[in-house]
Amino acid sequence: VRLADWQSGIEVVDREGCLHLLAQQEIGRLAFVIGGSPEILPVNYVLDGDAVVLRTAPGRKLDGALRSPVAFEVDATDRATHAGWSVVVHGHAEEVTRLDREELVRRVAALHVEPWAGGDKPHVLRIVPTSITGRRIPPRPRA
Amino acid sequence: VRLADWQSGIEVVDREGCLHLLAQQEIGRLAFVIGGSPEILPVNYVLDGDAVVLRTAPGRKLDGALRSPVAFEVDATDRATHAGWSVVVHGHAEEVTRLDREELVRRVAALHVEPWAGGDKPHVLRIVPTSITGRRIPPRPRA
Repeated sequence: VRLADWQSGIEVVDREGCLHLLAQQEIGRLAFVIGGSPEILPVNYVLDGDAVVLRTAPGRKLDGALRSPVAFEVDATDRATHAGWSVVVHGHAEEVTRLDREELVRRVAALHVEPWAGGDKPHVLRIVPTSITGRRIPPRPRA
Repeated sequence: VRLADWQSGIEVVDREGCLHLLAQQEIGRLAFVIGGSPEILPVNYVLDGDAVVLRTAPGRKLDGALRSPVAFEVDATDRATHAGWSVVVHGHAEEVTRLDREELVRRVAALHVEPWAGGDKPHVLRIVPTSITGRRIPPRPRA
């Protein structure tokens, strides 16, 4: 086990471990920058290899995510033991359209990312990672 | 019930409702901007009125949060019913020090925000909101 910080007891999760954790969840938080300010929004997602795929409607989320670097965070925590983990993906979002790469469009469509929120979300975003980092807080020792 | 978007069925949560939801949780995600890129990190927090209070060690999180506007997100979701809510606080972070306002320092110290991660986190940040917005996805109707 590699510790991120001896003092804090936080453990580092390697890239393979991060992808395993990302595959377990279906809600993450997408952060991007609009006018110098951070925006953060929860989204449903699926993994396409090491890329994060989500769907969105036209608007602020789509525009903001395409115009700035993005960060995407997923975590799980346990209030009883104070244990938890988090994974953060940094990268850029690209829109997956029928025009550019037919095979990619087909593959991503087959992943069936289904937002819990209804409504038409025709834009498919794919976050191509430049880094994937993870941290884990192990359960507290019993008193 | 006010709908954010008739098509999506997402409901708007008013400010009072948002503060009620924020008070129920203890983990949120802090987003800020470093060098034009968004950063997002999970943190333990408590509320001080409508301000979000958290503790941190010296470093990137502290520097980034103090030097850019911040966004702070809390959510809860239910995979069984696809219901959930999220609250996003936008604002600026200020460091609460002994030098500036003794009463505030005492009040915030009494809130006992205890990060699950160990280690010394001597810096207390207080996010003063410029906006608090919330959204709720009601449970799916049963088939």
